[in-house]
Amino acid sequence: MANTLGKKLRLHTWGESHGERIGGVVDGFPPGILIDFAAIQAACDRRKPGQNPLTTPRKETDIVQFHSGIFEGKTTGTPIAFSFENTNIRSRDYDSIKDVHRPGHADATYETKYGHRDHRGGGRSSARETANWVVAGALAKHLLPEVEIRAYVSEVGGIAVPSHAISFPTQEEVDASLLRCPHPATEHKMIELLEQTRQTGDSLGGIIHCEVRGVPAGLGDPVFGKLHALLGMAMLSINAVKGFEYGAGFGAAKLKGSEHNDVFDSQGKMIKNRSGGIIGGISNGENISFNVAFKPVASIRIEQNMPVKGGGVAKLPIEGRHDPCVVPRAVPIVEALCYFVLADCYL
Amino acid sequence: MANTLGKKLRLHTWGESHGERIGGVVDGFPPGILIDFAAIQAACDRRKPGQNPLTTPRKETDIVQFHSGIFEGKTTGTPIAFSFENTNIRSRDYDSIKDVHRPGHADATYETKYGHRDHRGGGRSSARETANWVVAGALAKHLLPEVEIRAYVSEVGGIAVPSHAISFPTQEEVDASLLRCPHPATEHKMIELLEQTRQTGDSLGGIIHCEVRGVPAGLGDPVFGKLHALLGMAMLSINAVKGFEYGAGFGAAKLKGSEHNDVFDSQGKMIKNRSGGIIGGISNGENISFNVAFKPVASIRIEQNMPVKGGGVAKLPIEGRHDPCVVPRAVPIVEALCYFVLADCYL
Amino acid sequence: MANTLGKKLRLHTWGESHGERIGGVVDGFPPGILIDFAAIQAACDRRKPGQNPLTTPRKETDIVQFHSGIFEGKTTGTPIAFSFENTNIRSRDYDSIKDVHRPGHADATYETKYGHRDHRGGGRSSARETANWVVAGALAKHLLPEVEIRAYVSEVGGIAVPSHAISFPTQEEVDASLLRCPHPATEHKMIELLEQTRQTGDSLGGIIHCEVRGVPAGLGDPVFGKLHALLGMAMLSINAVKGFEYGAGFGAAKLKGSEHNDVFDSQGKMIKNRSGGIIGGISNGENISFNVAFKPVASIRIEQNMPVKGGGVAKLPIEGRHDPCVVPRAVPIVEALCYFVLADCYL
Amino acid sequence: MANTLGKKLRLHTWGESHGERIGGVVDGFPPGILIDFAAIQAACDRRKPGQNPLTTPRKETDIVQFHSGIFEGKTTGTPIAFSFENTNIRSRDYDSIKDVHRPGHADATYETKYGHRDHRGGGRSSARETANWVVAGALAKHLLPEVEIRAYVSEVGGIAVPSHAISFPTQEEVDASLLRCPHPATEHKMIELLEQTRQTGDSLGGIIHCEVRGVPAGLGDPVFGKLHALLGMAMLSINAVKGFEYGAGFGAAKLKGSEHNDVFDSQGKMIKNRSGGIIGGISNGENISFNVAFKPVASIRIEQNMPVKGGGVAKLPIEGRHDPCVVPRAVPIVEALCYFVLADCYL
Repeated sequence: MANTLGKKLRLHTWGESHGERIGGVVDGFPPGILIDFAAIQAACDRRKPGQNPLTTPRKETDIVQFHSGIFEGKTTGTPIAFSFENTNIRSRDYDSIKDVHRPGHADATYETKYGHRDHRGGGRSSARETANWVVAGALAKHLLPEVEIRAYVSEVGGIAVPSHAISFPTQEEVDASLLRCPHPATEHKMIELLEQTRQTGDSLGGIIHCEVRGVPAGLGDPVFGKLHALLGMAMLSINAVKGFEYGAGFGAAKLKGSEHNDVFDSQGKMIKNRSGGIIGGISNGENISFNVAFKPVASIRIEQNMPVKGGGVAKLPIEGRHDPCVVPRAVPIVEALCYFVLADCYL
Repeated sequence: MANTLGKKLRLHTWGESHGERIGGVVDGFPPGILIDFAAIQAACDRRKPGQNPLTTPRKETDIVQFHSGIFEGKTTGTPIAFSFENTNIRSRDYDSIKDVHRPGHADATYETKYGHRDHRGGGRSSARETANWVVAGALAKHLLPEVEIRAYVSEVGGIAVPSHAISFPTQEEVDASLLRCPHPATEHKMIELLEQTRQTGDSLGGIIHCEVRGVPAGLGDPVFGKLHALLGMAMLSINAVKGFEYGAGFGAAKLKGSEHNDVFDSQGKMIKNRSGGIIGGISNGENISFNVAFKPVASIRIEQNMPVKGGGVAKLPIEGRHDPCVVPRAVPIVEALCYFVLADCYL
Repeated sequence: MANTLGKKLRLHTWGESHGERIGGVVDGFPPGILIDFAAIQAACDRRKPGQNPLTTPRKETDIVQFHSGIFEGKTTGTPIAFSFENTNIRSRDYDSIKDVHRPGHADATYETKYGHRDHRGGGRSSARETANWVVAGALAKHLLPEVEIRAYVSEVGGIAVPSHAISFPTQEEVDASLLRCPHPATEHKMIELLEQTRQTGDSLGGIIHCEVRGVPAGLGDPVFGKLHALLGMAMLSINAVKGFEYGAGFGAAKLKGSEHNDVFDSQGKMIKNRSGGIIGGISNGENISFNVAFKPVASIRIEQNMPVKGGGVAKLPIEGRHDPCVVPRAVPIVEALCYFVLADCYL
Repeated sequence: MANTLGKKLRLHTWGESHGERIGGVVDGFPPGILIDFAAIQAACDRRKPGQNPLTTPRKETDIVQFHSGIFEGKTTGTPIAFSFENTNIRSRDYDSIKDVHRPGHADATYETKYGHRDHRGGGRSSARETANWVVAGALAKHLLPEVEIRAYVSEVGGIAVPSHAISFPTQEEVDASLLRCPHPATEHKMIELLEQTRQTGDSLGGIIHCEVRGVPAGLGDPVFGKLHALLGMAMLSINAVKGFEYGAGFGAAKLKGSEHNDVFDSQGKMIKNRSGGIIGGISNGENISFNVAFKPVASIRIEQNMPVKGGGVAKLPIEGRHDPCVVPRAVPIVEALCYFVLADCYL
């Protein structure tokens, strides 16, 4: 089982959603870096459940604790271990589904592979794991003071921010929005749809757009370690992600070379940035942009047929505390993984 | 520089497009497997340039030679080294661009990163590298006799095969098509557009769809080694790829949970397969499907402004032998990487 | 900084001797194994300081806590995280040496490399790290129920157990001995010498012999992953180790081929085992035997010249709680690493 | 099967002793280094068989060919592939032993593990593989222009160079000696013994001492990547090696702390170097010294009982072209691996 991300900067994670703790170890972090603990906790707070009436009512205090690698506020170059307590475990919510395989969930595949399943909420497959990623990303951010990463929700349930309507919003603008969509008119429509959907017990998918500025030229490798391939792999590791594209993405397939090529003006300055800041797998110093597509949350309160262990089918809703739309909470996760991948390439 | 793909089954590659040879080493291959050399050469032949009037006139004989790891026709469990001679090198084609950076090419980024550039055709960034991947994939195929992978061109320059028009074509059907698009009506339109585009010196992008059947349940890991993340990383390593999606992909973002979830009938049988054969990062035994988006080829014979080393701008066309549309030749590359990733997970 | 041991079975460790906690993560452990927690704690107890009047009076309760990867007593196949609290930290013992570099210690090299040093007791260089290794080894032992590993002290300060005087002692015989030397006559002389040495404030080195039975044939690889090379690397990672030899070891250099070769009798049965159970890097099913040489502990209470930061020399003894001879406490560490390496090869 | 050495600088090797070619790929080598091809070939010549009447009469021209990664004489930062032709294969020498397992050889263990064996001379287990290591070491040497590594034979068949008789010989002094023992009186006795041994068809073991100067302080890591553990693992990978020790080595086990500690004079200068240049796993800038013990060659022309496949025992001598003492030819191999390990740590 792969539980490690990164080559030079490595994150090893552990923990099940309904065990005692979850945590991770960041190895390869340089010594002598002054750590901003408040910023790390703030990043965790952005991800944690229970932030607004539209997300899961499961509440975690989600206080990250550090155990090693930091002495008198500075990193020492040794592994940085951290963990979270799992404080708000209501495993009994899951008793009703102990013996069924939920549609769209990893229940069946996980059980096939490992010969067992922790029915109390996904085990390692739970999105609770992403709390570890946010810590790792917030640590990685210390290594890239020049880099600014701004992710936001650009589409929910088919309602999308119009092209070119947003350039590079501030984080305050993103967080001022309940859905982390910094385009009020669009967000208004999204909230309406989401509220309707929640009432029917259903869920919605969406897209996160991420824009990165200040990336030095030269990150990424020309063959297997292409920067966009590393970003893609990281983003495709987020629960519920179904697609990744960068620059002009799938739209590039419809263009001609003369339209897609980033031409230069007569001063040798790049005029457009359809490449998305990465050419031949290596960053060129321009803004990096990419999109990440999320499927709708699989846990819905609408009755569905579910295979029962030992045979037969049960028609059940999925109880428990689940998000009708996971996309807003995934914004800090996208940013965190992006920081981590860039820092790994940078070192 | 990352030149290795895979964990248990590993491919190490080497070679520049205009050096003496290119090649690779496949390590971790099990012993005792009878190798079908003709099938491997046939896979190479499907990729090689010069196959039809629409692709690059550069001709390589592209005969793969094996140097180790096979004794009396069977693998020995030791590393399998192979290589190709670079027979048809016309480096002088590149002399005119020795001192410029071509738009959409890795010239500038590569030179920034490594402090030098082999101007004779991309060095490690050249698509010639993918000949190695085809060998590795054809070897990996021996480990998965039950698995059938069928990639084909589903879109070129915005002209797309209609939804549900093709189910699982035979390889013969794919290869009977000049563009590897096994839907004659669509292919006809694609060829027309491509012919027009080639005459103007321009190029086109496109999409490859890949369908896989016979994959055993249980491949892939639940956290960082998700099967679709490994496939995504591999596909995003192919030159000119801008996006990867699996199952319902970006379209999933527009669906509700009740629409996207793969429901079961009253016998516990899965009715649809929007998940694309992978749930929670682990294969479930259903068909795996994914799409790969390619940008149009950056080398066009239309004049473009290019920054000149030392300052200034030159307005130049790009001479040399280039494909107006790389997508058909990428079909065997997509298949090869898919075989390799699946075999690596399988071992 | 390398903080990971193993390929398929991986141990990631973290923690400084005088930080809040130390711990580790064992990844790659198979699911479904019933864990014997008492046996793991017993292994930790064998290593912990303060066990007898001859070792350091630093007392750690050394209770290992598990945080993940085990559900209802069985492993789940997910990473097993564990940690120890550092309960008995007397950092002020180290104040007197804050500004000097102790002879034989990593002070100077560590500070050169990392630009700082945690003067409170060695940081990651401390032997406290080996508590993590003992847990990892005790976990690994669950995967090798047929394998018995018996390490014991065979030499201290030049006093050695006579050749062939011991065959394969029981663990009870080893632990009945204060110095873990299961040859009472030799141990008696060792204790006398050690007592004298301790009174002068000096320290002693020694040798641990390790014998392994029940190892299946076929562990280890023929080129870089030779079983003895992996064992050697692990043993050379133990603090204070200066040498590793297996089978006939350095003595083999004095033999002729006809003397060293493990000949067979007329029934094809191996008569002697000078190879030490490993031929060509691969186990042959015979007993594996090796020796590990330890230098004398560098921390002595005798005054020594020590370079002072900023220039000059101080003549100081080293206060603090240190072992006059580390070798007996290293016995469970040797066994633990041996279990870990064998299990990693076995998987 | 592990066929890769190193972390940042990586050597992937391939090839069987009696296949068409052997070779390797060095990945991670920095760009812009001017390569001294003559020096690399000279290093290969020092290793190759047939150099003097005391070694194996098997003659290989052993001309190394480079295939990639070098352009106009300089490295490009891309993988450096190289190979050797196997020109002098007399496989029929091995026909007589096709069905037996030779004592002291990997025949039985290899066959147990892989289910087959290339009886024509060891396959991957053959010392021919070390030709690849010599190339890799000679490349690595380019990265460490300040470092001088001098290995020589210090003991053969129990005849040893007296302590302190040699300090840091020149390479010319080493190579002037038929046995690479730069102490003529000792060498004279070694040659006598070796000549006698060869006539009886027997073989001898020995020890190589290696001394390294000019190593910068700070190489190696404090926990698992200790410099001496990496050197030890590399040396234990050489065929026929049975032990590794550094600094005072096994002798350290007999010393007191006050004797072993490297004390400083009143100016803070280190007086002795019992640590062997490495403290706490990290180089301290002093000379590094270590010993490598080799068993006698297993292939002897004296009749021995050998188990026959299918049952029974054959009493046979081992024909073929083998060294009566492998130690002199191992001198460049020890140096090469030492260069490679140091360069890997240095990068």
